[in-house]
Amino acid sequence: MFSRIDHIGVAVEEIEPALELYRDSFQLTVAHREVVREQGVEAVLLDVGESHVELLAPLGPDTPVGRFLAKQGPGLHHVAYQVSDIEATLQTLKDAGLALIDQQPRTGIRGSRVAFMHPRATVGVLTEIVEPAAGTGGH
Amino acid sequence: MFSRIDHIGVAVEEIEPALELYRDSFQLTVAHREVVREQGVEAVLLDVGESHVELLAPLGPDTPVGRFLAKQGPGLHHVAYQVSDIEATLQTLKDAGLALIDQQPRTGIRGSRVAFMHPRATVGVLTEIVEPAAGTGGH
Repeated sequence: MFSRIDHIGVAVEEIEPALELYRDSFQLTVAHREVVREQGVEAVLLDVGESHVELLAPLGPDTPVGRFLAKQGPGLHHVAYQVSDIEATLQTLKDAGLALIDQQPRTGIRGSRVAFMHPRATVGVLTEIVEPAAGTGGH
Repeated sequence: MFSRIDHIGVAVEEIEPALELYRDSFQLTVAHREVVREQGVEAVLLDVGESHVELLAPLGPDTPVGRFLAKQGPGLHHVAYQVSDIEATLQTLKDAGLALIDQQPRTGIRGSRVAFMHPRATVGVLTEIVEPAAGTGGH
């Protein structure tokens, strides 16, 4: 059902100091950078193997990532698993009785389709599923 | 330097309810189960692509994972990146001025050699590097 870890989401106050760590010290390659207004973040994807690190800086305090930072500071925010058919996966998860934040897919970074499960259904881990847009699946 | 996400570590109160989620609902395959007394945990590895989910249940409250759970409840605990030469990577990280918890590798799950960086050096993310034992590198 899940083919890989698509990305880990890391909440940061500002992109640039985090980029100095992940790009310069860890020597990861920046694959993409985008302001995702619907989610209230500026996001940067860096390649690591078949996965990415996704740095997430809030566009303001009254956004999900802004509230996360106010509550617990920067750190691991969520994990996303890649799927090939997000509707079928959502149905499987619903059939298993898992609480979903998104009943239907919505648009994520780089034209992907994404949905989040509720952390209370996933032992406290904010968990996302991602169906990449055509042409971005390998990365 | 980092070839892949080796695993994400998930802190849980008990292994079994988490296994019901990851093995039964998410349909991931259990690859390994081990009590790692040095780290004060029982750990289960589940395969996902080239990476793993590592479930971590504390052996008692006065352990790193036990204290993590007491402070913030279950959830994402750390991320580990796979490297081929842990000594060389540690030297590169030291040369970059990053604060390390482990100056030298120590033994991790499945005979791997591991070292942790300090979260204050890594924008709040507890970050581990892992050199797998021979024969377990593919997973």
